[in-house]
Amino acid sequence: MNIFITNDDGYLSEGILGLAEKLAEKHTVTVVAPHNPQSGAGHALTMHKPLRIKHFKDLSEKHKAKVFSCSGKPADCAKIGIEEVIQGKPDLVLSGINIGANLGTDVVYSGTVSGALEAAMMGYRAMAVSLDGNDLTYMDTAIRFISEFIEKYPISTMVKNYILNINIPALPFDELKGIKVASLGEVRYENDITRGVDPFGNEYFWIGGHKLLPEPGNKDVNYIKEGFVTVTPVSYMMGAEECIQLVEKKIERL
Amino acid sequence: MNIFITNDDGYLSEGILGLAEKLAEKHTVTVVAPHNPQSGAGHALTMHKPLRIKHFKDLSEKHKAKVFSCSGKPADCAKIGIEEVIQGKPDLVLSGINIGANLGTDVVYSGTVSGALEAAMMGYRAMAVSLDGNDLTYMDTAIRFISEFIEKYPISTMVKNYILNINIPALPFDELKGIKVASLGEVRYENDITRGVDPFGNEYFWIGGHKLLPEPGNKDVNYIKEGFVTVTPVSYMMGAEECIQLVEKKIERL
Repeated sequence: MNIFITNDDGYLSEGILGLAEKLAEKHTVTVVAPHNPQSGAGHALTMHKPLRIKHFKDLSEKHKAKVFSCSGKPADCAKIGIEEVIQGKPDLVLSGINIGANLGTDVVYSGTVSGALEAAMMGYRAMAVSLDGNDLTYMDTAIRFISEFIEKYPISTMVKNYILNINIPALPFDELKGIKVASLGEVRYENDITRGVDPFGNEYFWIGGHKLLPEPGNKDVNYIKEGFVTVTPVSYMMGAEECIQLVEKKIERL
Repeated sequence: MNIFITNDDGYLSEGILGLAEKLAEKHTVTVVAPHNPQSGAGHALTMHKPLRIKHFKDLSEKHKAKVFSCSGKPADCAKIGIEEVIQGKPDLVLSGINIGANLGTDVVYSGTVSGALEAAMMGYRAMAVSLDGNDLTYMDTAIRFISEFIEKYPISTMVKNYILNINIPALPFDELKGIKVASLGEVRYENDITRGVDPFGNEYFWIGGHKLLPEPGNKDVNYIKEGFVTVTPVSYMMGAEECIQLVEKKIERL
């Protein structure tokens, strides 16, 4: 396959380069990832300034994949990378492997998910892939899982208006419990704004709280904690179709 | 009502301050909007650095609303503004009035929509409001429409996991054809990346193409062109629930 890889971590991320190197054993791989990490980038697109693409010859030779960086956000990387950088059209776009899960309602903030969604909006088949937790001990688990998964999953049958959002637990490969296809759960935070005073006496606000334990249930946020790989179809069509008639009735009565 | 206003345009935008001033005739209004315009910001959340809030006393007196700026993105403005700036809890959060429509698949890039969605994620009732087109001639139409709409619409009955995404045509108020509750349509672009060479001989890529005319249909992208105000329920739950069983079956067969 002709595989395109991006993510919101910088192009030097072990999750990106490790995945690229593994997939390059069997596939043609092109990486276009941000110069710098872009956590929480959401689905931002850079339209107010020009963007730069840089090719890394040494990294490309080392990992047997073409490695480029882009001065933009993950969605920029996908857009420019697929339209202007990759040779030919990608059979599969992977955004990842992200260091840290992208689960539940948090996906609206996710640069990893937005990289895959941008590819889907362009008409390509795409998956976002994340490793739960913050350390790299189990990156090999995630790389092995996804490299085997894409060999077996019938990618050519994917309709193109959704992506698969895949999250892999931080466990040794043999301890993975299996795969659960699950809906997005609710992610709740506490104390998510810290108020402080800087060295110059000026007040600041810093976003970033502690995740609360998820409510019990059968959502992605639950299964990952039980040791399952979670697979969730996610779409860029954000319309709440089920509410249309309800809103229509309210407006008729005005 | 206690109304909170944000958007992705800067705090000086006529769409924000004009709306604030109008609503302040009847309501308590607090504005927290970005220092600088943030078009295409998507649902980015700033977690890697502290953010600043600034109060503008003169603007507040002039517009009879409390006006603040925030050094972050629209979702940051909503999050910090609602948790830390506004007095009490908002009865309604408005993101807008944006100068330029936010329709169809483009809403994934929209800072305006993300400001409202962030408020919904926090449990508040919210609407994103945009004026079609790029000039301000018909801003009065949009301000009048939305100020009348929120008096009549049963806001307290809105469930909190979706927002209303409202787009107003660039027309005199009396020429508005009515309101259509409609799904998001597809927005397609052509020539959406410009490749060039800068004064130093380096190649650049610039995102920003021409919108193609929408396919005929009964979506928001169609009705706005016919002169209708469009109202679309939009949700932060991006899961494609309708695809879960399909994906499950494919994975069972692996």
